[in-house]
Amino acid sequence: MIDYRPVLFVIGILLTTLAVAMSAPVIADLATDHADWQVFATACGLTLFVGGILILTNRSPMREISIRQAFILTTASWLVLTAFAALPLAYSSLEMTYTDAFFEAMSGITTTGSTVIFGLDNAPSGVLLWRALLQWLGGVGIIVMAVAILPLLRIGGMQLFRTESSDTSAKVMPRVAQIASGIAVLYLVLSMVLATSLWAAGMSGFDAVAHAMTTIATGGFSTHDASIGYFNNGTVEALIITFMLIGSLPFVLYLHAVRGNPGQLTRDTQVRWFLAIALLAVLLVAVWHAADNEVGFLTALRLAGFNVISIMTGTGYSSTDYGVWGGFAMGVFFFVMFIGGCAGSTTCGIKVFRFQVLYATAIAQIRHLMQPHGVFPVHYNHEPIPGEITQSVMSFFFLFATTFAVLAMTLGFLGLDFITAVSAAATAICNVGPALGDIAGPAGNFANLPDSAKWVLSAGMLLGRLELFTVLVLFIPSFWRR
Amino acid sequence: MIDYRPVLFVIGILLTTLAVAMSAPVIADLATDHADWQVFATACGLTLFVGGILILTNRSPMREISIRQAFILTTASWLVLTAFAALPLAYSSLEMTYTDAFFEAMSGITTTGSTVIFGLDNAPSGVLLWRALLQWLGGVGIIVMAVAILPLLRIGGMQLFRTESSDTSAKVMPRVAQIASGIAVLYLVLSMVLATSLWAAGMSGFDAVAHAMTTIATGGFSTHDASIGYFNNGTVEALIITFMLIGSLPFVLYLHAVRGNPGQLTRDTQVRWFLAIALLAVLLVAVWHAADNEVGFLTALRLAGFNVISIMTGTGYSSTDYGVWGGFAMGVFFFVMFIGGCAGSTTCGIKVFRFQVLYATAIAQIRHLMQPHGVFPVHYNHEPIPGEITQSVMSFFFLFATTFAVLAMTLGFLGLDFITAVSAAATAICNVGPALGDIAGPAGNFANLPDSAKWVLSAGMLLGRLELFTVLVLFIPSFWRR
Repeated sequence: MIDYRPVLFVIGILLTTLAVAMSAPVIADLATDHADWQVFATACGLTLFVGGILILTNRSPMREISIRQAFILTTASWLVLTAFAALPLAYSSLEMTYTDAFFEAMSGITTTGSTVIFGLDNAPSGVLLWRALLQWLGGVGIIVMAVAILPLLRIGGMQLFRTESSDTSAKVMPRVAQIASGIAVLYLVLSMVLATSLWAAGMSGFDAVAHAMTTIATGGFSTHDASIGYFNNGTVEALIITFMLIGSLPFVLYLHAVRGNPGQLTRDTQVRWFLAIALLAVLLVAVWHAADNEVGFLTALRLAGFNVISIMTGTGYSSTDYGVWGGFAMGVFFFVMFIGGCAGSTTCGIKVFRFQVLYATAIAQIRHLMQPHGVFPVHYNHEPIPGEITQSVMSFFFLFATTFAVLAMTLGFLGLDFITAVSAAATAICNVGPALGDIAGPAGNFANLPDSAKWVLSAGMLLGRLELFTVLVLFIPSFWRR
Repeated sequence: MIDYRPVLFVIGILLTTLAVAMSAPVIADLATDHADWQVFATACGLTLFVGGILILTNRSPMREISIRQAFILTTASWLVLTAFAALPLAYSSLEMTYTDAFFEAMSGITTTGSTVIFGLDNAPSGVLLWRALLQWLGGVGIIVMAVAILPLLRIGGMQLFRTESSDTSAKVMPRVAQIASGIAVLYLVLSMVLATSLWAAGMSGFDAVAHAMTTIATGGFSTHDASIGYFNNGTVEALIITFMLIGSLPFVLYLHAVRGNPGQLTRDTQVRWFLAIALLAVLLVAVWHAADNEVGFLTALRLAGFNVISIMTGTGYSSTDYGVWGGFAMGVFFFVMFIGGCAGSTTCGIKVFRFQVLYATAIAQIRHLMQPHGVFPVHYNHEPIPGEITQSVMSFFFLFATTFAVLAMTLGFLGLDFITAVSAAATAICNVGPALGDIAGPAGNFANLPDSAKWVLSAGMLLGRLELFTVLVLFIPSFWRR
């Protein structure tokens, strides 16, 4: 029998935190004299009540949780938080269905950024703030999870990033807690720096705070239907590009940098690969866009720089409708979704370190073909890595591709056209935001999709955000036996 | 220094064989009194001359070839044969450019089936016979290669199918030669059975022979622009479905069956998986097509059965324009391309055994997550397989996905729209035939593409047909050093 008490206890703590966060939209709606404050206050009270009960009824003397409990906790907490986070959206003055509210909340908390809301420009500030807050909390949540939990669970090669060689939770916990709180402080500081800068660049205070939160989380929810295109402000775009990139690098390395060791950040091969790929993709799309659509190169560079980095980092803002740029641009936008950023950042997708491991393994394989009796160890970040990790990464890649294909075909079955189905599956599992095509592309809206597709996409976002294995392991019958 | 003499010697033998094959279109054009017979006769003479010179100048006492020589031989022979096979097409009365002729020849010899020829119904019989012959030779060539060469080169997990545990070529050769000639005889017999049956079902003798050759090779070249839709004959479709499936199973197992051991064929898990996936895909598409397009279920089943199996086996015939069936059908048609058939058959794509290995590895990984100290060996066909093979298969999968993405983006760069670029890349690397979309889909023609795209697609067909590694290894600088 699995002891669910520690699981429910932690979920209780997380729900309480969510309830505290809900007080911010209450204040925002009160300040703008909008009746939605009552909805947020009620949802806050309910969430606090359920969270409190879970805490009180599940206190236990246990200090460690087992691997099975950790798996259940991870998936369950993300699901329960989304279900509660959707409540105020469902009952707000926007009159969303619960399906839409759940989709929007899942898109927020997984830092995806796909939206079903039309008319953001006139939406009440409480709802806008809540969407931004969900992404912001989801962003820091995933970094902490990537640092503290995934390496212990050894998900898809994440064991490369263990902070300690030992894995007995009790010993590691204080050290992990220290790292996690360091990251949280850094995350807060970066958000404040960006908010101030955006405000200084000309955004309203509210927009600056909301976009700072959704930028550092590489989330992509905006307060305007035209996304960042609304501001038409080069400084704003440059700031957001910078902080999308900052949000895509391993936050642990920032901690080292702050503590006087910036070399780890600049020497890290994952960081170098990520920046090199991003630069290459931006340049290729800029050259193509300039040549194919007769735009000046600098204009093309500005547009490509913003939108390619927004998609590759999984943020999902847009500054223009790049859906009309033609076949090559669409191809790049489609494939860079899968790359994503670095492990231990707020980004999603397959992540750069996995491509490094896959590439190194393929090269080793090819050398091995030439010299069948040679031994070719696979390296990552200048260190040889054990076969167990390469196998873990490769299985992740295979499962990612398969899940993508199944999602895409399911969406097709639910009535979506080929481009929408394929790109919506990709944008969900990679937690990016916009899809491609007329319906759910950068100029479209996910509200156009049938409800069934919204649930499938919500499942895709959860799978992608929790690195597949965390969720899929629950579907193995032997997980529940002992 | 690499000794190229054995390589050139074998290419000489292959060219001589190609020249002999060219005499068939000479006869066909003479019989129909078409002036193209001179073109084929000249090309035949030239090919024979070059082949003869290569044989005479490169005879050497060597009896074994090294691994490097085998890699060079495989890629070089496929390229040289295509270059010569394109000659009669380029100078025929169809007045194709050499680019078009090379594309058509590569599409033939790799058993792909994409065509750039409009008006097949009125094309001279020499050209039609030559296209069918190229696929037929390419089909048997690839089976022999898969049995005799790829396992020795240990390409992408093909070492699973070694016929002997020893790999010193000199000892294995007689046994391999025996298997290869057995397969060749079987292939000839199957082709004759199908040709006779198609003729009995109502095809003209010429169409029956041509389609028998392109069916057993899972090639897909037809003698009519409307492909098999031209005949509108249920018996023809049933026969072709049966022989496309026969062409997709491991031919070695037929040898065992003929020699009194049919159990190996029915017990083989690869065969079972392949048939199960094909059945599932057909049923899903039939149900979808019946419901979505208001067609009777039996009609839908007939259409789905023929076209899904044609695409999954990489044949590429069509009996209708399934491109208008909607998002789900397009999704299935797109993704089953990648699956392909069994190893040691005439089909291409990733192949079923690799998916079995990938699936088994992923399941083992997930179990390992639950029990970090457990050992979970990966099985294939009821036997445990070493980690070296799973790694080989996984690297193949990664390289396949990457090559597909690079091809698709390159095609986009050359001006193709997103759907055409993505599906043409898939159809080339999986050696299927038709792409999706209006331009190169089942109702379109590759003649619509720019020349640059045709060269890129030709490269994609070669990469796919030779299982990637065989070609990519030549691009590693250390291959050429010693």
